[in-house]
Amino acid sequence: MKALKWHGARDLRLEIIARRPLKAGEIRIEVAYCGICGSDMHEYLHGPDSIPVKAPHPLSNSVAPIVIGHEFCGTVVETAADVTGLQLGDRVAVEPEYRCGHCTYCREGRYNLCESMGFVGLMGDGGMAEEAVVPAYMAHVLPRSLSFRQAAVAEPAAVALHGVRQSALRPGDDCVIFGMGAIGLLLVMMARHHGAGRIIAVDVDPRRLQLAREVGASDTVDASLGDAVQQVRELTGGVGVPVAFEAVGRPETLKGALGVLSKGGEAVLLGLMPEASIDTFDLVNRELRITSSVGYRGLYPELLELMASGAVDAERIVTHTVSLEAAIQNGFERLASAGDAIKVLVQPQQEACA
Amino acid sequence: MKALKWHGARDLRLEIIARRPLKAGEIRIEVAYCGICGSDMHEYLHGPDSIPVKAPHPLSNSVAPIVIGHEFCGTVVETAADVTGLQLGDRVAVEPEYRCGHCTYCREGRYNLCESMGFVGLMGDGGMAEEAVVPAYMAHVLPRSLSFRQAAVAEPAAVALHGVRQSALRPGDDCVIFGMGAIGLLLVMMARHHGAGRIIAVDVDPRRLQLAREVGASDTVDASLGDAVQQVRELTGGVGVPVAFEAVGRPETLKGALGVLSKGGEAVLLGLMPEASIDTFDLVNRELRITSSVGYRGLYPELLELMASGAVDAERIVTHTVSLEAAIQNGFERLASAGDAIKVLVQPQQEACA
Ligand SMILES: [Zn+2]
Ligand SMILES: [Zn+2]
Ligand SMILES: [Zn+2]
Ligand SMILES: [Zn+2]
Repeated sequence: MKALKWHGARDLRLEIIARRPLKAGEIRIEVAYCGICGSDMHEYLHGPDSIPVKAPHPLSNSVAPIVIGHEFCGTVVETAADVTGLQLGDRVAVEPEYRCGHCTYCREGRYNLCESMGFVGLMGDGGMAEEAVVPAYMAHVLPRSLSFRQAAVAEPAAVALHGVRQSALRPGDDCVIFGMGAIGLLLVMMARHHGAGRIIAVDVDPRRLQLAREVGASDTVDASLGDAVQQVRELTGGVGVPVAFEAVGRPETLKGALGVLSKGGEAVLLGLMPEASIDTFDLVNRELRITSSVGYRGLYPELLELMASGAVDAERIVTHTVSLEAAIQNGFERLASAGDAIKVLVQPQQEACA
Repeated sequence: MKALKWHGARDLRLEIIARRPLKAGEIRIEVAYCGICGSDMHEYLHGPDSIPVKAPHPLSNSVAPIVIGHEFCGTVVETAADVTGLQLGDRVAVEPEYRCGHCTYCREGRYNLCESMGFVGLMGDGGMAEEAVVPAYMAHVLPRSLSFRQAAVAEPAAVALHGVRQSALRPGDDCVIFGMGAIGLLLVMMARHHGAGRIIAVDVDPRRLQLAREVGASDTVDASLGDAVQQVRELTGGVGVPVAFEAVGRPETLKGALGVLSKGGEAVLLGLMPEASIDTFDLVNRELRITSSVGYRGLYPELLELMASGAVDAERIVTHTVSLEAAIQNGFERLASAGDAIKVLVQPQQEACA
């Protein structure tokens, strides 16, 4: 079967690989769609970042080259003998976090913090392939009315939903969201669904700001036109907002997220970023809080229902769909050039012509 | 009457000043004790920091020179005609935060974040004097069994209690407290009262660590003997703790407070510190939180009852008591030399001989 394997930075290869037999607890999925994520882009452009290249990851037992892709869904085509609760033909979304199952965090249900933290598609073979093998605990059966195209964005939607849950955002609270990439746009939708008051979207790209308005932002700030903090202050009568989300992953936007807060406010970090300098005097003097959010836990069933109900139309972030053959050129390379692409889905069952 | 006035760094002066008539809403207190705080020390050594020297503070209408001291208690000796609920002879503790009463924060009861934030004894005349005049809203009548010496440490105890309340510390949770000055020791007591599991106290002074054990620390770490983070990790079987309090106010101890956390943990900052560099990658990757705490709000009545009941013996931090005349030499200068002093109380009614 065809699979897109990461061998190194700028070295993805479409290969024909053998199906491997299932081990206990595993299922095989015919992949319907697999989204290209920011972390995939990072591995493509600057990796290895999370991909193990020296020693195998303890939970996947895998090492590079690895089939990339963790945002996927599809149909169950095979289950190991010991797997229960899943039938052949089940349509499933994959929650790609590995769990060791026995560390303190896993035992408490906080498996996104598992001591052996890892993701299918980064630390082990993932979803940019005709078929994928994953532990059965990762599979969530889709509600009947949820399409595969919607389910393909469940993973980034889960990131956004977990971010909102980590925050202190209450219904009616205003918030600012920095960065209108896939996660930022999904944060707009989740904050809107959560009952936020004003949702102020910040980006430098007018097209993304337009999309932000379409999916629920009440106000937009174009940071290319002037200091974003000052623009937010003007929009909020000088007061600022109680919660700001940072979905860019840059020290400057972290600074912005703290800058737009009213006293007692909270900046929620979803983006990984390098060392950052923080005005700790201001932090304490204004009693601010910095909360962070990584991955998700325990929310897929509810999230899939939320998406099926139409309350959150996460598919709105999808801008392109490509075949496996075109994934590098029309997916990864398109996302690498700052263009109009936000979320690109790879469709392995699609014919090569697309 | 005698009062200790701040004129500038290293320039405190004991002066004889006139009593001023009360304005509406004010009361006059005969001061029993007034503690010397870390922020007083900062004003003494490096000020002005918070003391207004150019324009009057909006709520006090005062500018330097100012009578210093915000940790005080005493007896009501005069009340303005419009003051209700307080009698002459009432023994009171002063909650020294000014409130404008009409900003967003004051209206929500979060008056520690008041837009015109200020403290009696820093932004307006305070308690290191035979008598002090304060707004009546600052006075809390002492429970009968609470002594003035205990009430004199209510203010730093309120800082510690608010810090614990800002945190996510749950009964049974282990915690680490960095810095066994007055606030750190009071945090030990408050965490103990809150039902914390292990309380690991960190300092570089064996005498302070000994006192920490006496007031409730289960373990101590002498940071002068080696890396504090590693010592805490060894004490906790490599896991770390869910909550760490930073009561030193230095970037290095903030780094330590983040370093000792288990995943999903929270560092609570009570100390004001300059710009600090933070490993934001680690912060997000381990889903850590930085919470800050400034002052206190809405907790004095409960705190005074807590202290009166004996559940929290805050007076244990008092190491010295001095007269107004001796306050500079035996109070401020003693605290400036890294010695055995933790909390020094100034007793204005004491004869000069002491
Ligand atoms: Zn992703
Ligand atoms: Zn685990
Ligand atoms: Zn103080
Ligand atoms: Zn106010």
